[in-house]
Amino acid sequence: MSKVTILNSHDIGTLLDIPAVIQVVKDAYAEKATKDGEIWPMVYNAFSETADTDIRSGFLKSKGIFGNKELTWFGNNSKKGLPELHGAVTLYSSETGAPEAFINAPALTGFRTGAAGAVATKALANPNTETLLMVGAGGQAAYQIMAQICVLPELKQVLIYDPMSSENAGKFVQELPQKLTTLFADNVQTNQPTLAAKIKEQIKHIKFIAASNIIEATKNSQVIVTATPSTKPLIKAKWIQPGTHINAIGADMEGKQELDTQLYQNARAFADDLDQASEVGETQNPIKENVIKKDDVTEIGNVIAKKVAGRQDPKEITIFDSTGIALQDLEAANLALQRAKQFNVGVVVDL
Amino acid sequence: MSKVTILNSHDIGTLLDIPAVIQVVKDAYAEKATKDGEIWPMVYNAFSETADTDIRSGFLKSKGIFGNKELTWFGNNSKKGLPELHGAVTLYSSETGAPEAFINAPALTGFRTGAAGAVATKALANPNTETLLMVGAGGQAAYQIMAQICVLPELKQVLIYDPMSSENAGKFVQELPQKLTTLFADNVQTNQPTLAAKIKEQIKHIKFIAASNIIEATKNSQVIVTATPSTKPLIKAKWIQPGTHINAIGADMEGKQELDTQLYQNARAFADDLDQASEVGETQNPIKENVIKKDDVTEIGNVIAKKVAGRQDPKEITIFDSTGIALQDLEAANLALQRAKQFNVGVVVDL
Repeated sequence: MSKVTILNSHDIGTLLDIPAVIQVVKDAYAEKATKDGEIWPMVYNAFSETADTDIRSGFLKSKGIFGNKELTWFGNNSKKGLPELHGAVTLYSSETGAPEAFINAPALTGFRTGAAGAVATKALANPNTETLLMVGAGGQAAYQIMAQICVLPELKQVLIYDPMSSENAGKFVQELPQKLTTLFADNVQTNQPTLAAKIKEQIKHIKFIAASNIIEATKNSQVIVTATPSTKPLIKAKWIQPGTHINAIGADMEGKQELDTQLYQNARAFADDLDQASEVGETQNPIKENVIKKDDVTEIGNVIAKKVAGRQDPKEITIFDSTGIALQDLEAANLALQRAKQFNVGVVVDL
Repeated sequence: MSKVTILNSHDIGTLLDIPAVIQVVKDAYAEKATKDGEIWPMVYNAFSETADTDIRSGFLKSKGIFGNKELTWFGNNSKKGLPELHGAVTLYSSETGAPEAFINAPALTGFRTGAAGAVATKALANPNTETLLMVGAGGQAAYQIMAQICVLPELKQVLIYDPMSSENAGKFVQELPQKLTTLFADNVQTNQPTLAAKIKEQIKHIKFIAASNIIEATKNSQVIVTATPSTKPLIKAKWIQPGTHINAIGADMEGKQELDTQLYQNARAFADDLDQASEVGETQNPIKENVIKKDDVTEIGNVIAKKVAGRQDPKEITIFDSTGIALQDLEAANLALQRAKQFNVGVVVDL
């Protein structure tokens, strides 16, 4: 029988820290570009308009692991007092094919998706960014903001706009500084105490503001992150200032849209996976409307692997479309597993 | 956090019994035919000629579960003293999307593949069959033989032919009666004591014989099961007697072959999944050689669901091609989970 390490959502919260996940997600993008990682076909099934599941799988050659993540979304769960997201990552050894770990997927997904935005911001945004706009105040928002703080050393304020309800944004902002410290900075403490102190100091000096006027908020921000389930544009092209970088995180199926397609006319477009982005990501919309062609979009891995230049001019507008690739999940899961072994966290069972 | 039941290979051996798995695999085939079950696209990856993995997934509406099975085969593991097969089934609730179970896949796969052959034999073979020929003496053989015994009440002898080595067949035969009793009949005991006694009595009266002459063995048998990794025909058309039923279990990828394609000229052909069978199953070969068309093959689920007649004449030759469908795995996994809850077997963890 194989020894399999089980890591639940609490374990993941203890083991992972955003700076470390940013590093491995960067590795994942590079591995896609250099073919050191394989992404296998995604399986997707919609049970209804408010429930679906997808299975992402692949092979991370450099780490000697492969496996799959099944993530389920049941939108009506909140009415039952249950989380909307569930799922699990299963890791296998590519030496023997034996299972090594079985890991809570939603917690891991929050970390790796936050890290995805940060990797793109680091590669594409103006490094002297002082204002970040977060559009959406749902489950992903805190992860996204924390990750952006880690790669924007000059950040002075974070505006939070919730297209659903400004009341929600207000409540979110009130709880945020505490959440960032306990949920994220404290974890960094365990692994990198100096960095943790720096991040905590940084959080103290950032103003978190609930924004009610999306036009003003957009005009004042140098980096914008959108993470909503929207199906129509929230950000208009004419509001965007030169030099802005946008991470479009929300779109993950046909029909989803957060950005005005006209925005793509004067921007350089990037994505994590070109095929996936042009089918189910934000990128589907400007392609459908013939604003850009699929070939106009660069995979971010090519920037990380230094095959293509990142930002070339401070006035450039850049857009990154994150749809999520299996290699991110495998990298983050592998990081959690290695730390679990090191710190003796999790339950080990015979399978 | 969700409560997830972990069932290892030993638990599966304790919880499952062949007669019960035959029943749920029959249900799985019917559910495919009536669309009460969904099979999602299979993911397949070959690492090398001696190592691969596949992910099968689907949705079993009647039981309110969905999920996936990743099965890995690393052919060189035996040299390292490790099992060649590894993997896991993950079950989710279709009410909430929450994970319910994480189950050892190889043990489950043995049971459900044995049961697949039995369902086909029950539907297609002459019920007064006295001689069974098992071609192959590998990991699947004992499961296949046990399952055939359960559906062939008149069985008097089982011939075992190993195309790799007759010595291997001899060794296998020596250990078989004991294995059938302890591995399988004892399990039935827990759930259905009368049936268990009947099966044990049956085993006692069956002769198990290592066959060295495949031509003679084929001629003398009314049911033949092939479960080998062969890539060329082992059974010739001219050896087959009228009325024979054949279960071709081994072929599961392009290039695999156990039967002479000419056999299909005078036989009625069945399969578990028409698309899969014609691409990676035994059925690929007669189609490639234009002996039959894909449309000539009937899905076994249509026989189970009484949409198509099974055996129509005692002299008919019938062939069933088993490639394995996710619904079998989900049914067998669900059976194991329900019994685990009933008998308090397995480890329950928070995910």
